Amino acid sequence: MKALVYLGPSKKELDERPKPDIAAPTDAIVRITKTTICGTDLHILKGDVPSCAPGRILGHEGVGVIDRVGPAVTAFKQGDRVLISCISACGKCVYCRKLMYSHCTTGGWILGNKIDGTQAEFVRIPYADTSLYPIPDGSDEEALVMLSDILPTGFECGVLNGKVQPGSTVAIVGAGPIGLAALLTAQFYAPAEIIMIDLDPNRLEVARSFGATAAVNSADGKAVESVMKLTGGRGVDTAIEAVGIPATFELCEEIVGPGGTIANIGVHGTKVTLHLERLWDRNITITTRLVDTVSTPMLLNIVKSRKIDPKLLITHRFKLDSIFDAYEAFGQAAKTKALKIIIDA
Amino acid sequence: MKALVYLGPSKKELDERPKPDIAAPTDAIVRITKTTICGTDLHILKGDVPSCAPGRILGHEGVGVIDRVGPAVTAFKQGDRVLISCISACGKCVYCRKLMYSHCTTGGWILGNKIDGTQAEFVRIPYADTSLYPIPDGSDEEALVMLSDILPTGFECGVLNGKVQPGSTVAIVGAGPIGLAALLTAQFYAPAEIIMIDLDPNRLEVARSFGATAAVNSADGKAVESVMKLTGGRGVDTAIEAVGIPATFELCEEIVGPGGTIANIGVHGTKVTLHLERLWDRNITITTRLVDTVSTPMLLNIVKSRKIDPKLLITHRFKLDSIFDAYEAFGQAAKTKALKIIIDA
Amino acid sequence: MKALVYLGPSKKELDERPKPDIAAPTDAIVRITKTTICGTDLHILKGDVPSCAPGRILGHEGVGVIDRVGPAVTAFKQGDRVLISCISACGKCVYCRKLMYSHCTTGGWILGNKIDGTQAEFVRIPYADTSLYPIPDGSDEEALVMLSDILPTGFECGVLNGKVQPGSTVAIVGAGPIGLAALLTAQFYAPAEIIMIDLDPNRLEVARSFGATAAVNSADGKAVESVMKLTGGRGVDTAIEAVGIPATFELCEEIVGPGGTIANIGVHGTKVTLHLERLWDRNITITTRLVDTVSTPMLLNIVKSRKIDPKLLITHRFKLDSIFDAYEAFGQAAKTKALKIIIDA
Amino acid sequence: MKALVYLGPSKKELDERPKPDIAAPTDAIVRITKTTICGTDLHILKGDVPSCAPGRILGHEGVGVIDRVGPAVTAFKQGDRVLISCISACGKCVYCRKLMYSHCTTGGWILGNKIDGTQAEFVRIPYADTSLYPIPDGSDEEALVMLSDILPTGFECGVLNGKVQPGSTVAIVGAGPIGLAALLTAQFYAPAEIIMIDLDPNRLEVARSFGATAAVNSADGKAVESVMKLTGGRGVDTAIEAVGIPATFELCEEIVGPGGTIANIGVHGTKVTLHLERLWDRNITITTRLVDTVSTPMLLNIVKSRKIDPKLLITHRFKLDSIFDAYEAFGQAAKTKALKIIIDA
Repeated sequence: MKALVYLGPSKKELDERPKPDIAAPTDAIVRITKTTICGTDLHILKGDVPSCAPGRILGHEGVGVIDRVGPAVTAFKQGDRVLISCISACGKCVYCRKLMYSHCTTGGWILGNKIDGTQAEFVRIPYADTSLYPIPDGSDEEALVMLSDILPTGFECGVLNGKVQPGSTVAIVGAGPIGLAALLTAQFYAPAEIIMIDLDPNRLEVARSFGATAAVNSADGKAVESVMKLTGGRGVDTAIEAVGIPATFELCEEIVGPGGTIANIGVHGTKVTLHLERLWDRNITITTRLVDTVSTPMLLNIVKSRKIDPKLLITHRFKLDSIFDAYEAFGQAAKTKALKIIIDA
Repeated sequence: MKALVYLGPSKKELDERPKPDIAAPTDAIVRITKTTICGTDLHILKGDVPSCAPGRILGHEGVGVIDRVGPAVTAFKQGDRVLISCISACGKCVYCRKLMYSHCTTGGWILGNKIDGTQAEFVRIPYADTSLYPIPDGSDEEALVMLSDILPTGFECGVLNGKVQPGSTVAIVGAGPIGLAALLTAQFYAPAEIIMIDLDPNRLEVARSFGATAAVNSADGKAVESVMKLTGGRGVDTAIEAVGIPATFELCEEIVGPGGTIANIGVHGTKVTLHLERLWDRNITITTRLVDTVSTPMLLNIVKSRKIDPKLLITHRFKLDSIFDAYEAFGQAAKTKALKIIIDA
Repeated sequence: MKALVYLGPSKKELDERPKPDIAAPTDAIVRITKTTICGTDLHILKGDVPSCAPGRILGHEGVGVIDRVGPAVTAFKQGDRVLISCISACGKCVYCRKLMYSHCTTGGWILGNKIDGTQAEFVRIPYADTSLYPIPDGSDEEALVMLSDILPTGFECGVLNGKVQPGSTVAIVGAGPIGLAALLTAQFYAPAEIIMIDLDPNRLEVARSFGATAAVNSADGKAVESVMKLTGGRGVDTAIEAVGIPATFELCEEIVGPGGTIANIGVHGTKVTLHLERLWDRNITITTRLVDTVSTPMLLNIVKSRKIDPKLLITHRFKLDSIFDAYEAFGQAAKTKALKIIIDA
Repeated sequence: MKALVYLGPSKKELDERPKPDIAAPTDAIVRITKTTICGTDLHILKGDVPSCAPGRILGHEGVGVIDRVGPAVTAFKQGDRVLISCISACGKCVYCRKLMYSHCTTGGWILGNKIDGTQAEFVRIPYADTSLYPIPDGSDEEALVMLSDILPTGFECGVLNGKVQPGSTVAIVGAGPIGLAALLTAQFYAPAEIIMIDLDPNRLEVARSFGATAAVNSADGKAVESVMKLTGGRGVDTAIEAVGIPATFELCEEIVGPGGTIANIGVHGTKVTLHLERLWDRNITITTRLVDTVSTPMLLNIVKSRKIDPKLLITHRFKLDSIFDAYEAFGQAAKTKALKIIIDA
C-alpha cells in the first residue's frame, strides 16, 4: 500500500509498504478514505518529536472503512464507516477510567508517532472499540475528519478548560486552524465577546467570518492595550493560547482578568516566564491539556444537528498521490491561506 | 399616583395611591416606565397566594428611572435608568451570601406580594444596590423588561438546573411564556435537540420559530411515545417542567433518560406522584427553584451582545390606564395568542 | 462446586453445581474466598426482583483469587487476589464512557441476578479488566468485601449525590448497613453534623459509635420536630434516604432545608408522594442512583491509608456450608444485631 | 489608644493614636481583644508592600467587641463579639457578587494596608455587615483569631483551589503557619496521603503531629526523587505552594502528576519559570488566589463542631504592650519555633 513515511528531520517519502495486520485481539484494520495533515506532523518533520522514529508512517486523523477486526472487537465489523480518534484509549487503565485518554498507559497519542499512522491506504487501530466512532448515516465525511483531532482539541483544551460561559469574554491568541477550531466551538457556550488576536490579516478576516466579535492585529505590539480597551480595563474571562511560543503565552498573562483562566493549547518547545509577582493574588487559573477526545460523541451529535459546520476549516483538497503538494500548501499557509487540507486516500 | 391594586380574589382596581417614600436607608424610589404582567399575578387574583393581602399594588417586573435614593445607596443616583429584579436581595444574609437571593431572609419575592409592586407610576425598591441593575446605554427597554423575571427564571430554574449541555437532548413541557424563555436561553448551550411539548398548536408553532427542533402536541395522549421515538428510545437528558400540574411533571418522569435531569419551573398547587419504584435506579436528578436572579448581569451582557432577542416574547402593548385590557388579553392567551405584554406607565 | 441457589419465592438451597467456564474472551473465573449477603438478596428471595429467575446462584459481593482468564483479559492473571465489583462494566458502551457503569448496556447489576453470582466456590466475572480490582498487598480481605457494594453504594448514592460538604449538616434516615455505610463515608467530607434517624435503639447506638453527632428515634412520630430543633429551624443540607419506603422518603422532604439535597439510596417498591406544592420554590435537589462503583479505586486508597475501617460493619462470620444460618442471622437483624456477615467460601 | 504603627522600611513604633470614628454608615468600630501577626506584616516592614504607606497601623486579623456601628449596619450592635475578616467586602460590586471578595472594588485586603489595622486597641471596619462574623457562644476566641486569615487562606487558596479529594495524594511545600493551615484543612477531604516538604526538621515534626503522612526534608536537594518514590512514580494529585519563591514553585512543577493541580498560596516577589515544554501535554492546572474569606461561615461551623483545633497553630502569647517582643519571636521562627502568636489587646 502507499504510505507517507518519515525518514528523519526534513525527510519524507511516499513509499510502498505492506498492509498492516491485526496484532492484538482488540485491533482493527481501517481502510483510509480521507485523512489530513496536522501542525504536529510538521513538528515531527522538523525533528522536534523524538518519540517518532524514522520509518514511521505519519498521520493521526482520518475517516475510513473497517477492513478487518480482531476477535475481541465487539462494536465494529467489516464494512462499517468509522471516524478515527487521534488518541488511542485502552479503556481500562487508571487514566482511561478517569476519562483522561490522552494519558492512557498503553495508548494516548501513538498513531503516526509511536506506531504507524493514517497517511496511508490502511492503518492498524489499537483498542478499536474505544478509539473509533461509528459514522452516522448521512454524514459528510470531510466534515468528520475535523473531529479526529482539531475540533476536540480546540474544544477540550481551549473551550472546556477555559470555562467559556454564556455572556463571558474570551480572547483567542492565534487564528491558525486550532485557534479557529476553538473559536467555532467556543460559540457552543454563547460568550458575549470573542476577541481574536493574530499577526495575519487574512486569518483575522476568516476569524470574523467564523464569529469573532473583534479582531486584534498584534503586529503593532499593542495587543494588550487593545484588549484592555475592548474589555473596559477588566481583561478577559478566558484567554486561549493557540500558538505555543513564550510571547503569546505571556500575552495571555497580561490580558487575563481577575478570576479568569488561561487555557493553553499550544505545543511549547521551550519554557515560558510566569509573572507570579503580578499574578499571585489575581485568582487566575492556568490549564494545559493534551486532547482526550472525550468530547467526540458530543461533537458527532452537534455536527449532526448542524449547530456547527466543521467544513469551514477545509481550504484545500489533494489525492494521496499528491500528498507532497498537500504538505507544501499546508506548510506555506501564510501564502496559500491554507487551514485544513483533505487528502483522499 | 395610579396603581393596580389587588382587592381580594377576582377583584382589582386601578386606584389613586400616595407616591411611596424612602423607608430604609438602602431603599430607592423608582419611577416606572415599563412593566408587565406575570402568570403569578393571575394566581394572586385567583386567591392562590395567601402571602399577598388585599390592598396590595401588584407587579414585580419592570424598568424605570431612579427618582430618589436612601442615604446608604451607593450604586445609583437620581435619573439613572434601572432594571428592577423580581427578587429583592439584602446581600448580607446567609442565603444571599450563597447567591440564593430567592431565600433572602428579609427579601426574596416580596414585590407585588408582601410589599407594593411595579404596576404603578412609582415603586419603592428595598436593598436597591443589590436589587436593581443599571441599564446599559443604547439598550432597548422593552427587551429588558423580560430580564426582571421571565428570562432569569427560564434560564436558572430550567436551563442551569437542568444542566443543558452542548450536544444534549432537551424536552420542555409547556410552551407558554416561561417555557419559551427556557427555550431561548437553552440555546446558550447548543443542545443538539430541543423538543417542545404543548397542547396549543399556535404555541408549538411559535416554539419552532424560536429554535425548537421538534414540536410534540400532547393532545393525543401519546407524548411519551413521541419523545421516545425522537430519542431512539433513550429518553431526554433534560426535561424542563414549565406548567405546574401533576400530569406534566409525571410526563417528565416518563421521558427523562438514565442519568438525566428533571428541572421544575412550574408553580405547583398540589402534590405529585413520584414513581420511585421505577426511578430509584435510574440515576436521575430532580430540581426545584425559585429564581435567584443571579444570572441577571450575565443576561444583560448577552442581550447587549445580541446573542438573544428577548423582544420575541412580547406580543401586546398597553398603557397603564388600559391595564384591565392588558390583564384581559394576557388572561385569554389561547384566544389572543398573548405571550408577554408591555405596559407603559 | 457448592453454591447457594435461588429456587423461587422463599426457596433456596445449597446445591452442587458445575464450576463455571470462560464464555467470552473478556471473562475471568474467580475462586471465591469471602462473600456476604446483601439486603437485595432478601428482596430476591421474597420474589420482588423479576429479573432474577429460579435456578440462579445468588450473591454479587466478594473477594477471591483468579482461577483462569479469557484471552482478552490483560490486567489479571491466575493467582491474583481480586475484589469483585457488584457492577459489571464493559468499559465501552455509551454509559460506561460516561462512568455510569450501573447502566452498562450489557452489564450493570447482573451478578447474582441475571447471571450466576458469588455465593459459591467459583464465579464467572464478565468484563474482568473493568469489573475486578487488584487487592493491594497487606490488605485485610474481610474489610475489602465491604467495597464490593455497600461502601460505594453509601458513598456514591448517598454522600456524593448528596453533596456532603465540610461544615454541612446531614441527616441519614435509616441506620441499617447501608445507612451506616453512608455515615462512615460522609465523614470523608467533614460535615459539622450528622443526624442519624431510625426506630431501633441498638442501631442508633451503633451510629453514635460510628461518628453520628445526633441520634433521633423516630418511633414517637416526632422526627421532623427533632431535626428542626437540632438545625435551628433551617432543616438539613443533605437528607440521605436509606430505607426505601414512602414514609422515610417523605420524612426527607420535610427535613431538607432550602437549597438542600435529598439523596435516595433506598430500593423502592412503590411510588411516593412528592409535595411540590411546598417544595417548588425551595431550591432543592432530589437524586436517585444505582451504584456505579466508580469510586472503588478511591475507596481502596482510602482503606489502605486507614482513614476508614470498613470492618466496623461486620458483625457475624459463617462458613459457606452454614450459609443458611448466615441468611437466618442477617434476616433477623433486629434480634441478632447483624449488620454485614462474612461468609468464608 | 495604643497602636503598632509602620514608619517605613524596618521601622515601627507602639504609638498613642486617636480612637477611630465611624466614617461611613456601613462602618463599625471594634474594640480589639485579641490579634496576631501575619507573614505579610513582616513583608510590609521590609518595605515590600508599596500600597502600605508610613503612618499606617498594621494588622488585619483579630477578634473583638463591637463598640459602635454606623446607621446602615443591621447585623451587629454594641457589645456583640465579632471575628474580623482580613478581607473587607462591600457585598455589592461585580466581584463581591461573584463571591470574589478579595477583589472587591472598594475593599479587599485594605486593613493594615490601605487603612488602619487591628494591632491596636480599636479598629474601624468598613462594610461591617459583610466583613465581620458573630462569634458563637462558647467559642474559644484564641482559636477564632486563626479564622481571620490563616485558615481561610490555607483552605481556599490551597485546599479548595487544589481540589483535594478523598483518597487523593497531596504535597504541601512549606511547613510554616500557612502550609500547616493547609495541612489542617486538607484533612476535611480525607486525602489518602499528605506529604509535607520543608527544610526545617522541627516544622516537619510539627507537620507529622498535625496529620502529615510523610515528611520530606528538601535540604538534600532530592525532594523530587523522594516524592516520586512515595507516589510510585506518578507524582501528586495536588501540590500546594506555601512559600513564595521560584525554587518551591518549580518543585511543584516537578512533582505534580498528570491531571494534577498546583495551588499557589505563596506571596511571590519575583517571576518564576514555567516549564511548558514539559507540562503542555500533562493536563495540569495551576491556580493563584488572594483569599476571599468566603469559607469563613463554614470554618466557624467546623470549629464549633470540633472537627479541627485551630489552637494547634498558636505557640506564643504576648500583651499588646509587648508587641515588639511578639514581632521578635515571630520573625525568628526558626529559633523560637513560633507559628502563630496571640496578642492580647
